[in-house]
Amino acid sequence: MSQRVADHLATQIEAIIGRLGQYVACASVSADPAFENGMAAARDFLMARLAGMGMENVQLLDGGGHKAVYADWMHAPGKPTLIVYGHYDVQPPDPLDAWESEPFVLTQRGDRLYGRGASDNKGSSTIALESLAAYLQIEGGFPFNVRCLFEGEEEVGAPSLPAIFERYADLIKGDLVLSADGGRNGFWPAINVGCRGVNALEVTLRTSAVRDLHSGRYGGTTRNALHDMAHLLASLHDAEGRVMVEGFLPEAARPTEQQRRHSAELAMDEDAFFASFGGVAHGYPDYTAIERLTLMPTLEINGMWGGYTGPGSKTVIPNAAHAKITIRLIAGQDPRETAAAVIRHLEAHAPEGTRLEIRSDRGGAPAYSLGEESPLVVAADRVLREITGKTPVRVRSGGTSPITATIRDHLGIDTLMFGFSLPADGVHAPNESYAITSIREGVTCWPLMLTELGRIWNQSQ
Amino acid sequence: MSQRVADHLATQIEAIIGRLGQYVACASVSADPAFENGMAAARDFLMARLAGMGMENVQLLDGGGHKAVYADWMHAPGKPTLIVYGHYDVQPPDPLDAWESEPFVLTQRGDRLYGRGASDNKGSSTIALESLAAYLQIEGGFPFNVRCLFEGEEEVGAPSLPAIFERYADLIKGDLVLSADGGRNGFWPAINVGCRGVNALEVTLRTSAVRDLHSGRYGGTTRNALHDMAHLLASLHDAEGRVMVEGFLPEAARPTEQQRRHSAELAMDEDAFFASFGGVAHGYPDYTAIERLTLMPTLEINGMWGGYTGPGSKTVIPNAAHAKITIRLIAGQDPRETAAAVIRHLEAHAPEGTRLEIRSDRGGAPAYSLGEESPLVVAADRVLREITGKTPVRVRSGGTSPITATIRDHLGIDTLMFGFSLPADGVHAPNESYAITSIREGVTCWPLMLTELGRIWNQSQ
Repeated sequence: MSQRVADHLATQIEAIIGRLGQYVACASVSADPAFENGMAAARDFLMARLAGMGMENVQLLDGGGHKAVYADWMHAPGKPTLIVYGHYDVQPPDPLDAWESEPFVLTQRGDRLYGRGASDNKGSSTIALESLAAYLQIEGGFPFNVRCLFEGEEEVGAPSLPAIFERYADLIKGDLVLSADGGRNGFWPAINVGCRGVNALEVTLRTSAVRDLHSGRYGGTTRNALHDMAHLLASLHDAEGRVMVEGFLPEAARPTEQQRRHSAELAMDEDAFFASFGGVAHGYPDYTAIERLTLMPTLEINGMWGGYTGPGSKTVIPNAAHAKITIRLIAGQDPRETAAAVIRHLEAHAPEGTRLEIRSDRGGAPAYSLGEESPLVVAADRVLREITGKTPVRVRSGGTSPITATIRDHLGIDTLMFGFSLPADGVHAPNESYAITSIREGVTCWPLMLTELGRIWNQSQ
Repeated sequence: MSQRVADHLATQIEAIIGRLGQYVACASVSADPAFENGMAAARDFLMARLAGMGMENVQLLDGGGHKAVYADWMHAPGKPTLIVYGHYDVQPPDPLDAWESEPFVLTQRGDRLYGRGASDNKGSSTIALESLAAYLQIEGGFPFNVRCLFEGEEEVGAPSLPAIFERYADLIKGDLVLSADGGRNGFWPAINVGCRGVNALEVTLRTSAVRDLHSGRYGGTTRNALHDMAHLLASLHDAEGRVMVEGFLPEAARPTEQQRRHSAELAMDEDAFFASFGGVAHGYPDYTAIERLTLMPTLEINGMWGGYTGPGSKTVIPNAAHAKITIRLIAGQDPRETAAAVIRHLEAHAPEGTRLEIRSDRGGAPAYSLGEESPLVVAADRVLREITGKTPVRVRSGGTSPITATIRDHLGIDTLMFGFSLPADGVHAPNESYAITSIREGVTCWPLMLTELGRIWNQSQ
């Protein structure tokens, strides 16, 4: 049925681009207080659009930072509730002189629209908004309840989103989340079914010496914190790149055959991948690069330092050395437990006569994974098959999507990233752009997705 | 015979302290151009004193930096030539508010004389000058030829001393050097028979990646320079602290039985040593702490750094890591060859797909060693036995004395450090001081040393 909605939207592309232009003109940079007016303008734009399309209960949610915009349509009693997520804030436009046109004036050149936020996330949010509007207009309602949440702090790490979830627990509840954020990896059709989690540690190793020592007066007699740190960090991996921490990777967490099959379907060109950054393959030797990137965890030293690092030489025996470590986690690895295993390893391997101080400044985010049986995945699979005539591949991100983890933490529900950004859009960079074909594809897929999700979801209830 | 000289000097202590006060009043800080007048005053003081005592050919030697003061007495034709070395420059007096009396006013409190340079090196230089003066006055001449060299850049690394040695090669030649610099380690009687050499390397390890990488987008697939650097640095030592570099420590360079016996005679209190800085014993396990400090080489990482070292976490996979390494060398280890062995080890152990850049910004200084048969050692041994009634121990410094190595490099001759500083003097620190007993002991030992050296040396010719 929603083909009617999609068909209607296909005739509205010029008008949709016009409204995207109004949205981009709201210079909503969350990182910089100088853009406070643009932030307010973007909120006003969203509230007016949501109210205008027939969404109800439109309001601002205050979690102590930039307010989020909320609206709902709750006229499907007894039916589940879909939360539609997006964010209205954008990255700073700097460096300004690298832009070929004004960052906050949506400018068409060829088949692309240029402007800050044109892709991330105003372009994909516009697809969601226009689809909801047309759906309400043409179908007169949704096959489930809908709540919209457009937040304003995604580009600065969404610090007050948890507070919003807590303060407005009566409003922000539901069963599934369809996110207008996120993008396509260049595999089309593809469904993003997961991303790795993350946790961070900072390690300081101290010898018992009360100060750095002169290497002439003490060298050879006593411990050097840099030697000890080098040994300690080297103990974390074998020469092939396996993590050597006991309990780090439970057997049960290893990639499943299905996951590995999905990765193989991507047929990643490893040579091209490594050529793109000049790297060489290294890591768990029994897995392909795409498996190592998305299905396997990593333990990375992101920084290490100690002793004298200025020009020339200084003959010092340092009594302290430092390292920053992050872990990328897969499903089956609890962030805290995994960090605890690493801490146990470090403590067990720190030489006698040294002492460790380990700071873990956040609980970390677990890996995020959507099951094949999720209505979100089943619906997306059907829609993409229908639109493209191809079998959608399952893709996973090597990075971490804090929003999806935050949502699962607080609401206990799944999110499908259903944004239409592409790598060529250059998000966060000068001359960010959005392909007009992405809008066309988006406003075809989103209405079909809503219909298909309603069908599957209501059957499964 | 020179007991007469020593006896005479013992009656002159007040006058000697008076002249030391004039010398200390010359604020000769070589590091700071604001003290240029003090530098000139110190040179004038020395030249007047040398001329006044009967030394000849008094002149300044210009190597491009602070000039050195030279004088000679060459009336022993056919006899060898002793070079007496000292330096007239001092460390900056900062921090001024930590001084209990004016830094450039020699001030007696109790049995100590306070002032910048009171010990290093004006105190010990005064012992040398007064001894030479009294010897000439009372004996009418020396049993060998004497050249005096007081340079003005010791506290800033003596950068133009090699140029002085080259430009004035006709003046600065001789057979042995008796240095008024250096000090007593607290073992009395003791003869300093050596110090370790030094060489420095700076190592950069780069992966082939063209930039630092995002750990979400690349983590697990490719090399991390910090992991590789940790493994590389860890390969340099075993867990007990032995250096694992092939060719680093030739069997022939290992401490001799005689050297180990001399070390044992010091009866170092290891517990007190480690307690003094809170350290614990670590290093070549078959050697005592004093042996590891003075008779064994070390390879120390003085600094290492790479990746993100600021606050919080940054999920970066660095493509470069850095380390600073210095080597303390013993006799039998050539600085360049040893550095080359370390470089070979690093290159052999750097993982495939990485590349090293190694910078060695100086040729290094070899270890310095005085043989038991050197007339300097034989004479010092006899003098110290006679004065103290005890058997002098042989001590070695774990540090490096660049002057002795520079002298051997340029003149090819041996130096005995025969200064009278003590650890309690606090050289380079505020409230630097010199014990009046050090002056008494010094002006007893130096005249006897000159006589004894003449006797032994002339017998051995």
